Amino acid sequence: MRPTGIAFDAFGTLFDLAGLGPWLERAVGGYRDEVLAGFSARLVPWTWHATAARRYRPFPEIAALALRSAAAEAGAELSEDEAAEVAKGLTELPPLPGVAEGLEELGRDGHRMAVLSNGTSGGVHALVEGAGLRERFEHLLAADDVGAFKPAPEVYAMAGRAFDCAARDVLLVSAHAWDVAGARQYGLRGAWLHRGSTLAPVLGEEPDLVAADVSGLPRALREASAV
Amino acid sequence: MRPTGIAFDAFGTLFDLAGLGPWLERAVGGYRDEVLAGFSARLVPWTWHATAARRYRPFPEIAALALRSAAAEAGAELSEDEAAEVAKGLTELPPLPGVAEGLEELGRDGHRMAVLSNGTSGGVHALVEGAGLRERFEHLLAADDVGAFKPAPEVYAMAGRAFDCAARDVLLVSAHAWDVAGARQYGLRGAWLHRGSTLAPVLGEEPDLVAADVSGLPRALREASAV
Repeated sequence: MRPTGIAFDAFGTLFDLAGLGPWLERAVGGYRDEVLAGFSARLVPWTWHATAARRYRPFPEIAALALRSAAAEAGAELSEDEAAEVAKGLTELPPLPGVAEGLEELGRDGHRMAVLSNGTSGGVHALVEGAGLRERFEHLLAADDVGAFKPAPEVYAMAGRAFDCAARDVLLVSAHAWDVAGARQYGLRGAWLHRGSTLAPVLGEEPDLVAADVSGLPRALREASAV
Repeated sequence: MRPTGIAFDAFGTLFDLAGLGPWLERAVGGYRDEVLAGFSARLVPWTWHATAARRYRPFPEIAALALRSAAAEAGAELSEDEAAEVAKGLTELPPLPGVAEGLEELGRDGHRMAVLSNGTSGGVHALVEGAGLRERFEHLLAADDVGAFKPAPEVYAMAGRAFDCAARDVLLVSAHAWDVAGARQYGLRGAWLHRGSTLAPVLGEEPDLVAADVSGLPRALREASAV
């Protein structure tokens, strides 16, 4: 497998959602970890719900609703304005360990790369630029550009269009099995980053490639290409 | 509020998913409770994923995939055939406590009622007939009839068509806050059955009516109509 282009998921794959911690600390103090856990459990399923209901709202709006719901469950106070403020933290998350090195090595190997995120265009630009990674990517693609979240086909379709190639020549890289499943259902190939966890395929879709994290991806790709 | 028609969710609202227990016992023995918990955590989000991806598959197929994934996570063996066999249990679930009495009382109060389920038409008929509840419902509406799961608009649209009334004159009754949210987003009203749990609205959508369970619904409706 030598993909024409590699499309990376952003939240949880390139960038660390735990970076919301200090924002939550300011907003809900000691409830911080509990609210972060409740938020993480809601965020992705709610984006699916919004797409299934055809009631798309940008990622930061869904994040703010999920934050308020998680806070209510934890018994913490979080106003609409405070939730919107915490959601701004989604544009300033740190890259996960190994991301910078892995992307640099993939670049040396001649791979063309993009971000394919459920975020907004502005948010994805801010994240990538803030982490000093802008030059690594040919394209920054955001769900907000098509008004639906992954796994909607129109989101995955952006990747083939950007690289001007067939869907099967794009490799979607994600730490989320549900994202790999969505990509494969659409026709992309999918690489799953396990980060030490056990594979639990979603809807029966197995990844085409597995690596521990972004830093392990260059070697996994070279080995797969050599087969 | 005096709705023209009341549409009931089936799984978890009228019928008890714990009824899969004996089917799981036969298939995975001592792993039964663990697999049931993992299955329940996957089932609903996976139906949203399928609808968002526009990769609809009937409820029993998604259930079988979720059962196999939950079994794999638990370290239990569950073949494709065995998973399909357990999924058949979805057509033989017992009604939850208070359902028969509540529906009878609603019928005495002159309410017109339907089932609006994520299941298949055959499955919903089997469930309702098996529980001796067929005469309570004017309509048995199944997601399979429109090839999408709740919260897709086309599923909720079936209710207004069946009762020949405006969306806002239908009351969707569900034990699931995500279902109430979907119904309200579409334009139906929503009643949430709390079963002793604390309200955690999904995507900011609050229910129009709250009752403990189906047996508490007739009184809650009379009180709401008197206001």
